[in-house]
Amino acid sequence: MPISRRAFISGCAALPMAGVFPLTRQTRPQVPARVDATVLRQRLEALSLHGRPSGGTFADGVSRVAYSDADVAGRQYVLGLIRGAGLEPRLDPAGNVFARRPGRDNGLPPILFGSHIDSVPNGGNFDGDLGSLAALGAIEALASSGVQTRHPLEMVVWSAEEGVAFGRGLGASRIVAGDIKPADMDQVWNGMTRADAIRKIGGDPDRIMEAVRPKGAHHCYLELHIEQGGTLDRSGTPIGVVEGIVAIDRYTATVIGVANHAGTTPMPDRQDALIAASQLTLAIRDIVTAQPGRQVGTVGRFEIEPNAPNVIPGVARFTIELRDLSMEKLAGLVTEIRARAQQIAGATRTTINIEPLSRNPPAIASPDVQRAIERAADSLGLGHTRLPSGAGHDAQMMAQLSPMGMIFVPSVGGISHAPKELTRWEDCANGANALLRSIMEMDVI
Amino acid sequence: MPISRRAFISGCAALPMAGVFPLTRQTRPQVPARVDATVLRQRLEALSLHGRPSGGTFADGVSRVAYSDADVAGRQYVLGLIRGAGLEPRLDPAGNVFARRPGRDNGLPPILFGSHIDSVPNGGNFDGDLGSLAALGAIEALASSGVQTRHPLEMVVWSAEEGVAFGRGLGASRIVAGDIKPADMDQVWNGMTRADAIRKIGGDPDRIMEAVRPKGAHHCYLELHIEQGGTLDRSGTPIGVVEGIVAIDRYTATVIGVANHAGTTPMPDRQDALIAASQLTLAIRDIVTAQPGRQVGTVGRFEIEPNAPNVIPGVARFTIELRDLSMEKLAGLVTEIRARAQQIAGATRTTINIEPLSRNPPAIASPDVQRAIERAADSLGLGHTRLPSGAGHDAQMMAQLSPMGMIFVPSVGGISHAPKELTRWEDCANGANALLRSIMEMDVI
Repeated sequence: MPISRRAFISGCAALPMAGVFPLTRQTRPQVPARVDATVLRQRLEALSLHGRPSGGTFADGVSRVAYSDADVAGRQYVLGLIRGAGLEPRLDPAGNVFARRPGRDNGLPPILFGSHIDSVPNGGNFDGDLGSLAALGAIEALASSGVQTRHPLEMVVWSAEEGVAFGRGLGASRIVAGDIKPADMDQVWNGMTRADAIRKIGGDPDRIMEAVRPKGAHHCYLELHIEQGGTLDRSGTPIGVVEGIVAIDRYTATVIGVANHAGTTPMPDRQDALIAASQLTLAIRDIVTAQPGRQVGTVGRFEIEPNAPNVIPGVARFTIELRDLSMEKLAGLVTEIRARAQQIAGATRTTINIEPLSRNPPAIASPDVQRAIERAADSLGLGHTRLPSGAGHDAQMMAQLSPMGMIFVPSVGGISHAPKELTRWEDCANGANALLRSIMEMDVI
Repeated sequence: MPISRRAFISGCAALPMAGVFPLTRQTRPQVPARVDATVLRQRLEALSLHGRPSGGTFADGVSRVAYSDADVAGRQYVLGLIRGAGLEPRLDPAGNVFARRPGRDNGLPPILFGSHIDSVPNGGNFDGDLGSLAALGAIEALASSGVQTRHPLEMVVWSAEEGVAFGRGLGASRIVAGDIKPADMDQVWNGMTRADAIRKIGGDPDRIMEAVRPKGAHHCYLELHIEQGGTLDRSGTPIGVVEGIVAIDRYTATVIGVANHAGTTPMPDRQDALIAASQLTLAIRDIVTAQPGRQVGTVGRFEIEPNAPNVIPGVARFTIELRDLSMEKLAGLVTEIRARAQQIAGATRTTINIEPLSRNPPAIASPDVQRAIERAADSLGLGHTRLPSGAGHDAQMMAQLSPMGMIFVPSVGGISHAPKELTRWEDCANGANALLRSIMEMDVI
């Protein structure tokens, strides 16, 4: 669903810009800069070539897994774009790509913004790519409008965000946030060490600790990203102002029953682990949805033993994943789930153990940045709503170093991590301009 | 829980034998033959050595999988016992062991009886072993009592009953029943062809078709076996008279939902295949138990995709196994299950398909043989009850050739196919004598 550049600009020109701008400490440029929507689209389409399935089209998505040849090629493409914009890209030892545009006061910490371009296998064309290319587009828009910000600007293309390579949560933004030790470079995945993987994309594993940045390294961190859920799309809201990235608590539930002959064991005598597990799976959904709010609960991995058609399941093991901005709410949910599990265990003559698997605290977006994004959207005449991010993002790591904020744009049908992932070109452009305006809003705070 | 031979015999001697014997066409021996309970126990313990876990005891069960070295050794042990009893064992081309004792009229078809000695991995000491060794014990008892039957007697130790090797339902009794073709000898399992496996145990795969016996080959087939369920043990009934071996209908249920991000997909938007599958799993149990009877229904294999903690399950696949003596009842159950599946699919916005996987008709025990077993139990003063066999047995195949009947003895706690499988020595002896008396009852019909 492309829109012409003319239609886009003329549509925006009708808005009462001047009246929407709030008063701030600094004077804003009188001709608001705009990200070139046509160029943004062309670049998203061109980047999609790297990792495209053989014989496929844009609609077939990408497999641009971190450290793959497609990832290297995609990064080369983006490095070329950065150089083409007159910027000098710099790779940190972790392989993250940075490019800096000086501000009026280069003693100030930079405003950092960007995203990633690696994908999950059989992923889509917008997850990460949009935020990365919009970051470059924002800098170009400022340059072409002759706007110099007070703070230096720094765009970033993070490496390995998707957590496919070397396990989850091992993206290179985590390294910048300080969660790294030299021995981690010896990890092996797909037959290569993490050191070799980082070397493959131009990083320097021998100096990996130099990739770490201190707290306060940035004025703030901003990231434009597709929502990946369906909230904005369903409500027709072009801009989502992220309240934070939810906490994720994971548990492993183990149900122990008695495996027995499916032919010779009468129904009343059974201690069927799958029956108990099915009841608990449904109870988890009921508990999570019983109270208002956006909390989610998922049983995503589920296995039984011995897993034969003619044997009553003796063991069921499954994961319980709970997400919400509030850790207190998550703690309350798991307490209810544990209580229900014990009732089910008693009724089915099984035992049920629920053990913590992992715990990720929430990353709360800075209220200042949230308000700046809202002002930016208002200035563009774009509707907006606050919402949590149910997915993890590089912004989660950057929140440890400076105030953080994220801008979401609609994912059609809420589909993501799949070739059908789609954000309309108009929404891509809106998001890029919201990023640009948010940078400018934050520059004057 | 051993009993002394003296106690066993004196206990039985107190029973009013003569009055219990029904009138039949032939005269019975005046001194009833008995199977030697002590020898039977010693042989069960000795057979248990072949396939015993390293360093284990009788209580650790056996792994005497068909065609394994342990199976070969166990068969050699049994062949030695047969020769020791003055019989000449004969192997058919499929590797089944037969031994014949002439009758008064050798133009009559033989009464065939026996069981198997192969086991599941980590199986027990009674499944098959009891019926095989009791068959030999019955012939020995008749010999030592000087009783000659009218029909020739033939004991059998079937090969590969458990369906571990070369897939389920490929036991060698199936070959005798005629379900075989020469090309089946090319099947490969554990790196060996079925031909080589049969050669390993002394069979002759090149003459495999000669193992087939015609309908009417036997006067009847009798098999003593442990119940493998808990019905007899719970009610304290020493003898079970099998009404038949249940029909087994298997289906594969496939639930198609939408795999999606577990963090970004709000609860109301989900089309979670696991939720639907859990509901259907519970519904199957409810439907099966809603009507009286001994029918059972099991979801024993259960898998989801993509099976990751952070992805809403998009697909669930599971087996539905239904067993009952009545195929009409099974057909009614699956009709109800299909209807409930469609309701669940509608409510969860998934699609559910239920496809037939396999269908095994029931093998009904001959009413004449059932009554003969009841008279035999009565003559021993042993309580008895009729019940279906939920498990498959060689008797299922033999029912295709002649009238068939089975005698069950209690499994403690209903445990089977596990090292803890246990049938008390007293119950073993009762079962063996019930087999002996049933042979004699059938001899006069």
